[in-house]
Amino acid sequence: MNYKLTIAFDGASFSGWQFQKNAPTVQAVMTEAAQSFFTSPATVTGCSRTDSGVHADNYVCNVKTERTIPPDAVVRGMNTLLPDSVAVKGCECVPEDFHARYDCKSKEYHYKILNTNIPDPFLAHRAYKFGTKLDVDKMAEDAAYLVGTHDFASFMASGSKIVDTTRTVFNTSVERDGDLITFSISADGFLYNMVRIITGTLIDLNLGRAKHSMREIIEMRERSVAGFTAPPDGLYLFKVNY
Amino acid sequence: MNYKLTIAFDGASFSGWQFQKNAPTVQAVMTEAAQSFFTSPATVTGCSRTDSGVHADNYVCNVKTERTIPPDAVVRGMNTLLPDSVAVKGCECVPEDFHARYDCKSKEYHYKILNTNIPDPFLAHRAYKFGTKLDVDKMAEDAAYLVGTHDFASFMASGSKIVDTTRTVFNTSVERDGDLITFSISADGFLYNMVRIITGTLIDLNLGRAKHSMREIIEMRERSVAGFTAPPDGLYLFKVNY
Repeated sequence: MNYKLTIAFDGASFSGWQFQKNAPTVQAVMTEAAQSFFTSPATVTGCSRTDSGVHADNYVCNVKTERTIPPDAVVRGMNTLLPDSVAVKGCECVPEDFHARYDCKSKEYHYKILNTNIPDPFLAHRAYKFGTKLDVDKMAEDAAYLVGTHDFASFMASGSKIVDTTRTVFNTSVERDGDLITFSISADGFLYNMVRIITGTLIDLNLGRAKHSMREIIEMRERSVAGFTAPPDGLYLFKVNY
Repeated sequence: MNYKLTIAFDGASFSGWQFQKNAPTVQAVMTEAAQSFFTSPATVTGCSRTDSGVHADNYVCNVKTERTIPPDAVVRGMNTLLPDSVAVKGCECVPEDFHARYDCKSKEYHYKILNTNIPDPFLAHRAYKFGTKLDVDKMAEDAAYLVGTHDFASFMASGSKIVDTTRTVFNTSVERDGDLITFSISADGFLYNMVRIITGTLIDLNLGRAKHSMREIIEMRERSVAGFTAPPDGLYLFKVNY
C-alpha cells in the first residue's frame, strides 16, 4: 500500500526533514510513528528536503507499507503517536508508483517577517523579526519581477551542485497584517535556499542597500549580487501540488 | 521610580506568574531581567496570579527600582535580557503609588478552542483541542447570561478562600475563525479558575450534557452544577485596564 500524507510541522525543534545521524528530523519521527502504527516496515518519502528550523503547513510525504488501513484511521492513529510538533492533516491511498518528490508539480512557500522591534513570544522561531519598517508595496513590485521562467542562479546558495537553475515562478504576493508581513511564492521548483535568498534580496532592495534592481539581479545570474539569506525561522512550506 | 510594563508571555514553559521555589515563573524571569537591566534591586508586582500554562497577550506589572531610565530604553534593554517566551511590549513611568494589582479596574480574557480532531503543531499548548463540533451561536447566547453583576460562586474552583464572589461581567463574545473558536470575557474581576470553568460550562451546555441552563447555573451558586474546568492551554490574559 502507498499512502499520501499531508502533514504540518513546527520545524523549530528539528534539523530539517531529511534523516540525519544524531539529529532529530521530521522524517525520523514520521518513520518511527508509521512503523509503530502499521506494525510493519514502512518507508516514508518526503516531497523535499527542508533546512533546520523551517516549518510546514502542508508538507506531503508518501508512506509505503504492507498493511491496509482506512485513511481516516491512519490520520487518527498517527496523530496519537506523533509529538506535538508534527500532525497528520490528511491521508489518501494512492497508486503504488506515486512518489512525493518526483510527482510534485509545484510548491508554494510563505516567508513571515515580524516587522517590529518588539518580540512576540508567540512567533518566536516562527517568523523573522526585522525591526526597520518595510514598504510592502515596493516588496510586492520587486517580487513580481520573479514571475515567469527565468534562470534563478542568483538566488541559489553557493556550493549547490544543481546545474539547471531555470525554474518557473507562477505567482508572488506580499501582504501585511499588522506587524506581520507574509511573502508568498509558488513555482514548479525551488533551488537551494531560493526563498530565503529572495526574501533577503527583497529586504535589501527595500532599504536601498542593493546595488542592482531585481530585474538586473535576475539577469546577472550571480549569487553575490543578490541579498542576504534570511533565517529559516520565517519559512513555511505552505502547499504542494501534484 | 515606578515603571508600568505591559508584557506578553507564552505560559507553556512556566508554572504561572507567581514566584515559586524550584519552578520557573514569569515573575522570577522578569525580576531577574529587571535587576540585571537596572543593576539595582527591583521589585516586580503583577496584576494577578496566573495558573501554570496560561498565556498573556498584555499582562501588566509594575517595577520599582532606584534607577531612572527612559521607558523606550527599558523596553529595548529588558527584551535583550528576557527569554523568547516573554516580551516587554510597552513601558511608562507611573506615580510611586501605582500598583498593578490593586489599581486594576477590569480585565479581559480570551479562551481559544481548536474545534477539530486534527492537531495543529502551531497551536500545541496554545489552544484547547476539542474535536466535537461546537455551535458558536449557542455558546454566544449562553455566555450572554453572564453579563451583569452576579454572584459567580458556581464558577469558582472549590477550595478558594474568597468570600465575596460577586463580580460584574461587562462583555462576552464567542467567535469562530475556521477551526479556532475564541471566547472573550471582560469583567471587573475574576474568581479562581472562573474563565476556565465558564468555558467548560459553555461546552457542556453545547453538547446537552449540562443538567441546568446557564441562568440556572448562575442562580444556584454551586460549583457542582457548572461544567468542567477547561485546561489552561487555551487561556490568555488579553488586556488589563486601569
